[in-house]
Amino acid sequence: MSRCKKLAEAVSLQEHKERIDRILSHPGAENAEGFLWWGNHRIFYLAGFAFVPTERPIALIIDKKGSTLLFVPRLELEHARAYAGVDDVISYPEYPDYEHPMIHLSRIMKDKGIKRNFFGDGDGYGKVMGYKGPRISELTGACFHPFDDIIEKMMQVKSPREIELIRESARWAGHVHRYLQEYTKIGLTENEVEMKAAWQAQQDLINEYQGKYRALSWGGNGPGAGYRGQVGQHSALPHSLNINAVFKAGDTLVTGASCPMFGYWSELERTMFIKNADESQTRYFNHMLELQNLAIDACRPGKTCSSVDRKVREYFDFHSLKPFWRHHTGHNIGIRYHEGPFLDIGDETVMEPGMLFTVEPGIYVEGLGGFRHSDTILITEGEPEFLTSYPRDIESLILPG
Amino acid sequence: MSRCKKLAEAVSLQEHKERIDRILSHPGAENAEGFLWWGNHRIFYLAGFAFVPTERPIALIIDKKGSTLLFVPRLELEHARAYAGVDDVISYPEYPDYEHPMIHLSRIMKDKGIKRNFFGDGDGYGKVMGYKGPRISELTGACFHPFDDIIEKMMQVKSPREIELIRESARWAGHVHRYLQEYTKIGLTENEVEMKAAWQAQQDLINEYQGKYRALSWGGNGPGAGYRGQVGQHSALPHSLNINAVFKAGDTLVTGASCPMFGYWSELERTMFIKNADESQTRYFNHMLELQNLAIDACRPGKTCSSVDRKVREYFDFHSLKPFWRHHTGHNIGIRYHEGPFLDIGDETVMEPGMLFTVEPGIYVEGLGGFRHSDTILITEGEPEFLTSYPRDIESLILPG
Repeated sequence: MSRCKKLAEAVSLQEHKERIDRILSHPGAENAEGFLWWGNHRIFYLAGFAFVPTERPIALIIDKKGSTLLFVPRLELEHARAYAGVDDVISYPEYPDYEHPMIHLSRIMKDKGIKRNFFGDGDGYGKVMGYKGPRISELTGACFHPFDDIIEKMMQVKSPREIELIRESARWAGHVHRYLQEYTKIGLTENEVEMKAAWQAQQDLINEYQGKYRALSWGGNGPGAGYRGQVGQHSALPHSLNINAVFKAGDTLVTGASCPMFGYWSELERTMFIKNADESQTRYFNHMLELQNLAIDACRPGKTCSSVDRKVREYFDFHSLKPFWRHHTGHNIGIRYHEGPFLDIGDETVMEPGMLFTVEPGIYVEGLGGFRHSDTILITEGEPEFLTSYPRDIESLILPG
Repeated sequence: MSRCKKLAEAVSLQEHKERIDRILSHPGAENAEGFLWWGNHRIFYLAGFAFVPTERPIALIIDKKGSTLLFVPRLELEHARAYAGVDDVISYPEYPDYEHPMIHLSRIMKDKGIKRNFFGDGDGYGKVMGYKGPRISELTGACFHPFDDIIEKMMQVKSPREIELIRESARWAGHVHRYLQEYTKIGLTENEVEMKAAWQAQQDLINEYQGKYRALSWGGNGPGAGYRGQVGQHSALPHSLNINAVFKAGDTLVTGASCPMFGYWSELERTMFIKNADESQTRYFNHMLELQNLAIDACRPGKTCSSVDRKVREYFDFHSLKPFWRHHTGHNIGIRYHEGPFLDIGDETVMEPGMLFTVEPGIYVEGLGGFRHSDTILITEGEPEFLTSYPRDIESLILPG
């Protein structure tokens, strides 16, 4: 199979090839006989193939010349041939089956001359959905060299095409969030409002894209927005799950919205209030906005991630808000919804242009609610740039009820 | 904190306690000083706490007397206190932060007298969303004994309460599937039909449950059904992803439907046709139905999982259908959408009452389409019992268009 133009590609085959070249030429990989990648997000990053990870291992094998072979279960063969930007696809029947797929994979590695060593993100497949299996090093005698830190570092800095996709994801996050805001009414439940907003935004996306949209993600099929249980007092739990809450006057709300765009994600979150915000709600909202402003302003190339979070924590201390602190300032985002580096006091990564961060310092007051905006921000040579675009001021975020 | 009645419990605290007692008294665990569990589904199984797994590790620590302590990041403290059925919850500030959470956890283990050994499902937290960290054995000097096979085996056989929840999940899977079938029309896209079906089914569920429904899952918030791209020729890809397909007359469709029910899942899938099924579509449909019937009938206690798949493969061979075979017959299901054992020729697990299986042999014909029903089946002392309930005959599954 030649590297032809693939169906629904997120980034160009050329860009995939450049990524692979960077790995092959990375210091430390000079003597690598081959590479094995197991992580579904990493396979998507290197070969553009989006799939549902199950108990059946999928591996991307790259030899020292950069030739790529995708090893898949039989049920993914035609799917991989149609969508994966690789030189070849080979399949094993099934897992568990008579022969363990790792035995099969070991033969392929031998055929490809990978005998003494291999690099990659694992010495075998993880324990996904009940999978069990031997390590590759045991079967082949080749020595495994972990190289996941290298690919993680590459994935941290986004290319122009990746930024374009995340910007478009952010546009649809804003679009579906507008519906969420509009449909949220006293007496309705979070579930029905979320479903209606998603349905309406899907229709708009379908109309605009005329069949050309692809999510390329198994985490969602289009724009979505919701509350994840962060309604009223329950909004004080930063990672609540949906509780099918009923909206009532005076509720503090924390939202979340995104849209998978050819495999890439953005994040948009807002604090809103139903009918009115009282004095304490307003005070915490204003602190939160101050915190977000100072954090975004601190996102500059050459500075460390920790320096941003340190400013945020200093603000908490100075304003005696420490009892309401719950989490770090933000995280990188891309093919995965969270990825490193983190805007965290313990992360000394130096920010550089092309990195993205969610900036989302939060204040959480038990018995009252949670206060958190999240915007997706691009590090540039100069000022940080908003990829998300949605009103942040309190006046715009008080719902009529 | 005492073990009080928790918010939104899936199974009783008594059942959680019995599960923990079974682990403590399991052969091989006599000398265990303590247990560490990291997997989010396992923590839910043992303590009823559903949460979003991120870069921040969460661990359930059980000492040799069965006392339970949940170790969470600060942002999950109140959430865990409200929802987790444990004796105590303790939090670390954040990850990465100044001090690595594993240092903190090591101190806790020492305080609990866990010094020489610990059992569980990992010697540290996995590489989730960019997490990195040391192994616990390195930090504490205690020896790690993997015990995940034991808990996996326990999770394979469902309790009466678990079966009740999965049966209820299956009822809502059928409910939302009826809307999917009704709303699917020539010229519409899979995305808009799926969203509308989910929205409508959500409304019904909200009305019926009157605020008492909880998904307790981060994979979904209510009933959902869709095509995942399996529309027309694309239905020949068993694990396709959504392609925003437009329905047309003559399409073969493969559906999927489920509903998280207090953390538990079922699976319902159907092959349908738009307007009519031609001679070859009908032939493959009939073969598929025969295959599913013989596989379900073979699901008997005392028989091996492999024996079911062997019968399916024999049918494929006998009828010269081998070119259209793609995957094994089915999988166990519960808190996770797939889990072992598998109805696979390589799985020698003996079936026993209380095990559940999706039974879903499939036929996939390139250029024509895919043919697969999936039902969730309970192994009983006698005949297998359908938990899903939806018409399987071709007449019921041809849409007017």
